[in-house]
Amino acid sequence: MTVETTPILLDIRQDVALLTAALMDINSVSGNEAALADAVESALRTIPGLQLVRDGDAIIARTELGRPERVILAGHLDTVPLPTVKGSLGTVPSTWESGVPGSGILFGRGATDMKGGVAVQLALAATMFDGGAEPGKDVTFVFYDHEEVEAVKSGLGRLVRNHGHLLEGDFAILLEPTDGTVEGGCNGTSRFEATTVGEAAHSARAWMGSNAIHAAAPILSRLADYEPRTVNVDGLDYRESLNAVKINGGTAGNVIPDRCVVEINYRFAPDKTPDQAEAHVRELLEGFDVVRTDAAAGARPGLNHPAAASFVAAVGAEPKPKYGWTDVARFSELGVPAVNFGPGDPLLAHKDNEHVDADAIRECLRALRSWLAD
Amino acid sequence: MTVETTPILLDIRQDVALLTAALMDINSVSGNEAALADAVESALRTIPGLQLVRDGDAIIARTELGRPERVILAGHLDTVPLPTVKGSLGTVPSTWESGVPGSGILFGRGATDMKGGVAVQLALAATMFDGGAEPGKDVTFVFYDHEEVEAVKSGLGRLVRNHGHLLEGDFAILLEPTDGTVEGGCNGTSRFEATTVGEAAHSARAWMGSNAIHAAAPILSRLADYEPRTVNVDGLDYRESLNAVKINGGTAGNVIPDRCVVEINYRFAPDKTPDQAEAHVRELLEGFDVVRTDAAAGARPGLNHPAAASFVAAVGAEPKPKYGWTDVARFSELGVPAVNFGPGDPLLAHKDNEHVDADAIRECLRALRSWLAD
Repeated sequence: MTVETTPILLDIRQDVALLTAALMDINSVSGNEAALADAVESALRTIPGLQLVRDGDAIIARTELGRPERVILAGHLDTVPLPTVKGSLGTVPSTWESGVPGSGILFGRGATDMKGGVAVQLALAATMFDGGAEPGKDVTFVFYDHEEVEAVKSGLGRLVRNHGHLLEGDFAILLEPTDGTVEGGCNGTSRFEATTVGEAAHSARAWMGSNAIHAAAPILSRLADYEPRTVNVDGLDYRESLNAVKINGGTAGNVIPDRCVVEINYRFAPDKTPDQAEAHVRELLEGFDVVRTDAAAGARPGLNHPAAASFVAAVGAEPKPKYGWTDVARFSELGVPAVNFGPGDPLLAHKDNEHVDADAIRECLRALRSWLAD
Repeated sequence: MTVETTPILLDIRQDVALLTAALMDINSVSGNEAALADAVESALRTIPGLQLVRDGDAIIARTELGRPERVILAGHLDTVPLPTVKGSLGTVPSTWESGVPGSGILFGRGATDMKGGVAVQLALAATMFDGGAEPGKDVTFVFYDHEEVEAVKSGLGRLVRNHGHLLEGDFAILLEPTDGTVEGGCNGTSRFEATTVGEAAHSARAWMGSNAIHAAAPILSRLADYEPRTVNVDGLDYRESLNAVKINGGTAGNVIPDRCVVEINYRFAPDKTPDQAEAHVRELLEGFDVVRTDAAAGARPGLNHPAAASFVAAVGAEPKPKYGWTDVARFSELGVPAVNFGPGDPLLAHKDNEHVDADAIRECLRALRSWLAD
């Protein structure tokens, strides 16, 4: 039996901070995005100038004005799970700290990550044709599911596979929280296991065996002594990290350990491919058995592209590098330079006290609207 | 309801190798020693010159001849569990490799650890008053349960608490397998946890935290560089071991680890107390948070005691130090010098192919009988 439900009605022309609260009040924890996707889709269908494609709980909405430049504005609909700590503010529905809707700080799941950004996307779509005006650039709005979970489930990844041509463009902006500055590109990330092998023996006769944990001493020393680099890429300084994130060795309190595994995470600047990053780690851990277990390429900031440059100029604030891996890397793989720019403090994302200032959302909308009109 | 069963009849006057096989055929995995203890008790009750005390599944049997010297002969009745690998020879019942009972190699659980030794104890008890002869020393036979499990369950420990005065003596021999040589005393053992503490952070922004695994590098380096000592105690060379036996750190692949724990096992020569051993480890790991989690004192070999010296001379072979911790340490605590001396290769103990040569059991019996008669 299929249950047909009427989508929740979203007023996407109301104040963008109030719209953010309305979006937050629709629970959309990863895997449960359907109600929000339905509401977004039916709101977008009220705008005559947009071509819509729905794929699962993702939506692509494009202007087709024949402009020389096309800009992509993308955001994910899902959030991380609700707080489990009783009394947390970062939950559903949202709460205005002031008690006055639209004024001051808005608490609730998705406040920063990233229903403020999605509200800005919807507000731009709602008003871009207002007063007979038409934007100076073609725009592709992308709303997608499953960003906060394993990469294999990513709604954006699915859109790339199913509708890659609809994601082409000159420049992409992900409305992830950046506190109102432009964060360009992102570091890549890779994971390795360095393993030492010894020979088990009773610990009362240690000289009959060989200790794999002792053999791992130089791995830890080299990692501890390693000085991570900062690499300038397209004008932004990417700070790298190279760390042991786990270590495990030994089987029993009276047995000389015959195996020790150090798990290493290397966050590398976007001047390197994953293979180059691997070569760097292998060089550092020369003489040890190193296996790469995971890798994702970074993304260059692409701020030398004219569209990106004009956007950075319009925002006004100094652009910064992004350290964590984000979906800008997916656009980068498609050949589309991409940056993050959105309302809210990224350090509050996923926290139990997630919140955003109403004026930060309005300021983000103002900056994007003025740049798009150019 | 109490189930009364008739004890299995043991012929303790038969050939000591055949007696070993008969003992092995009674399953006595730790916790399941009752049937064997019953059989041993009822066999000992047939010898008029012995005073018996039964405590749980342990038995003390003493001569009371008023001799100036008293010797303790002790052995445990339990074995480690049966092999789980199908087709293993080290199981119950026993098997003669030659097919001829009493000839050649005897396979089965307990062959070396230590039903050969228990058979020698019983054979000595059975014949020591034969032909009107009386031994030149008073003898205390001790048979006990729960040696192969946690120390807190030890049957010998229980006897010390309940009947300590019955365990007094000038010299003790544990009939644990030593391949027919005298192994004197034992190393002590102690366990420590060395913990490093860092500060968790996202691994993409490692500089916001501090890496506890990297901080553990000097612990491993010092352990790897450490040269364990060999200490001469009462004429025997005790080789020490100091090893990391486990290491564990880190919580997730994208989090800078805030805790790393190295578990260390120090096997120290019997010239040191556990507190002195601890001071040595603390000195080596100066600057780190070290907690002692376990310790058991070693035992000096006591070979300078006249009874021990005469025993070593009677056996003829060069005495060796014992590296693993054994119950000789319990006698040492009572002020009774103790050695290990029994048939079978100690390296076969607990193995799936545990076995013993029939002649080795006979030779052990011969050596003890001749020394006791002096």
